[in-house]
Amino acid sequence: MTCLQKEICINSKPRGFYLITHEVVSNFPEMSQINKGVLQIFIKHTSASLTINENADSTVREDFEAHFNEMVQEGQPYYRHTIEGPDDIPAHLKSSILGSSIQIPITNGSLNLGTWQGIYLCEHRNNGGSRTLFLTALGE
Amino acid sequence: MTCLQKEICINSKPRGFYLITHEVVSNFPEMSQINKGVLQIFIKHTSASLTINENADSTVREDFEAHFNEMVQEGQPYYRHTIEGPDDIPAHLKSSILGSSIQIPITNGSLNLGTWQGIYLCEHRNNGGSRTLFLTALGE
Amino acid sequence: MTCLQKEICINSKPRGFYLITHEVVSNFPEMSQINKGVLQIFIKHTSASLTINENADSTVREDFEAHFNEMVQEGQPYYRHTIEGPDDIPAHLKSSILGSSIQIPITNGSLNLGTWQGIYLCEHRNNGGSRTLFLTALGE
Repeated sequence: MTCLQKEICINSKPRGFYLITHEVVSNFPEMSQINKGVLQIFIKHTSASLTINENADSTVREDFEAHFNEMVQEGQPYYRHTIEGPDDIPAHLKSSILGSSIQIPITNGSLNLGTWQGIYLCEHRNNGGSRTLFLTALGE
Repeated sequence: MTCLQKEICINSKPRGFYLITHEVVSNFPEMSQINKGVLQIFIKHTSASLTINENADSTVREDFEAHFNEMVQEGQPYYRHTIEGPDDIPAHLKSSILGSSIQIPITNGSLNLGTWQGIYLCEHRNNGGSRTLFLTALGE
Repeated sequence: MTCLQKEICINSKPRGFYLITHEVVSNFPEMSQINKGVLQIFIKHTSASLTINENADSTVREDFEAHFNEMVQEGQPYYRHTIEGPDDIPAHLKSSILGSSIQIPITNGSLNLGTWQGIYLCEHRNNGGSRTLFLTALGE
């Protein structure tokens, strides 16, 4: 059994949902040492998040941005944490609804994803800056 | 320390929420080898999901179906990914809100769930077909 | 590689969102033995949940309570699981939207959280009582 860890940086992106599967995998070649295990991807921020969803049609990611903006609207009268602008508290809420980590099985040194699954970085701020991901692969 | 992996198939079900704790456990007797560890259950699809909730009263699962249909409604004017029908993009959205994996502690060879906790398969498509789950148990 | 497990109890709190990072860490000094790994925190209940979010301004936690009460309203006409009162089924729904476990990397014996990240206990019942958390640290 072994544990491999690595911090990687994702360049600044405008608000929206982005497919980052290739970027994660290509930055973590050490994962090929793990025959059976789990990869955790953890985002070290509270206004961006990670999820797994469809890796083919970009309209899925556009619909995610549109729907989360409806489900967690800006400018609600009950918001009190509004110092950093209208996208501030909605970004925190979206981040907890989607979650700050994903876990994916590793089999034979590769991510064991379904055919249509990809890793999304969910950027909830208008100007969130670059984002730090921390990778942990546990297995044998 | 050891890592055990197994793929299991859940038969096709109509849209809704289903308790599958017994089906998962009975298909993975190898888990009894793990004294202390974690079980990951990963669903290899983007229009069905997994969660943990109440294992007793079936009205909880009916209310889940009703509420998620309100919170993520079909036919929103801003949807663009509508090729496969009105349940298509709502299924992707529900899948990311609930999540594609759950992690449960293993203690003394069994799932260490609370008294009222059970594993739900959340089928978000009208005709989703059978669903593949991938199990990884890590521990000693 | 090692696996450490411990059950801890969080005292009863009124409905709302609470920062419990210090309480978790101070109750699990054994974690310092893990150089590289992952901590899982699992809540053994179906009407309270765990998430990671902003650790500084308490208005974030107040806005979370307000927003989740809007997104998952009490008294919806389609609810059937209402025996234990108006906060019953909304608590189950919020619990699955936020999730019953969080996973955090461990590096050099400490939680590898971002600067602004903290652990929230999300109490969704008016009188939920004390809550049991089950900690599993896996690593080397």
